Amino acid sequence: MTQLEKCMQDLMLIFHNYSGEDGDKATLSKKEMKKLIEKELPTFLAAQKDPKFVDSLMKDLDQNRDDKINFEEFLSLICGLSMACEECFRRSEKKGKK
Amino acid sequence: MTQLEKCMQDLMLIFHNYSGEDGDKATLSKKEMKKLIEKELPTFLAAQKDPKFVDSLMKDLDQNRDDKINFEEFLSLICGLSMACEECFRRSEKKGKK
Repeated sequence: MTQLEKCMQDLMLIFHNYSGEDGDKATLSKKEMKKLIEKELPTFLAAQKDPKFVDSLMKDLDQNRDDKINFEEFLSLICGLSMACEECFRRSEKKGKK
Repeated sequence: MTQLEKCMQDLMLIFHNYSGEDGDKATLSKKEMKKLIEKELPTFLAAQKDPKFVDSLMKDLDQNRDDKINFEEFLSLICGLSMACEECFRRSEKKGKK
């Protein structure tokens, strides 16, 4: 298995690790989503000022309005965060070269 | 660093590992994209019948029509593949329970 294949597998396993708690592996309930963010994205969560952050994040991610987060909606969060980090990384590299 | 944070970091580092070859880390040229797929997604590539697969994949991914693949366009490939794998995984689990 290549490093990229491992990344994709890990994204799925991490999602299922939390989504499977209530028996329905296909989606994260709000409780499961909150736990995932607290455990897996502590730095991201700590940077948020809004005490109701998880509620508003779920609203933004929940494209099909079923009050749950499916794997596609979860991946959109991961993509948003990854793109923000990648941009920061490139900017800091450019600054380093000046 | 959590496992999910590591995944996001690895996605960025893998992308830069190939995109940086021509000095422009922000995008993958066709040559760099071909190399990334051959090295990082050999199973996916081997399953394709079309000899011009990489060309058509690039066309599909290249949303801004600049003949290059940026990180966002790369992530859309990763999301598509991850979602296909996740669906297969859940289906095989359900079959296993029958």
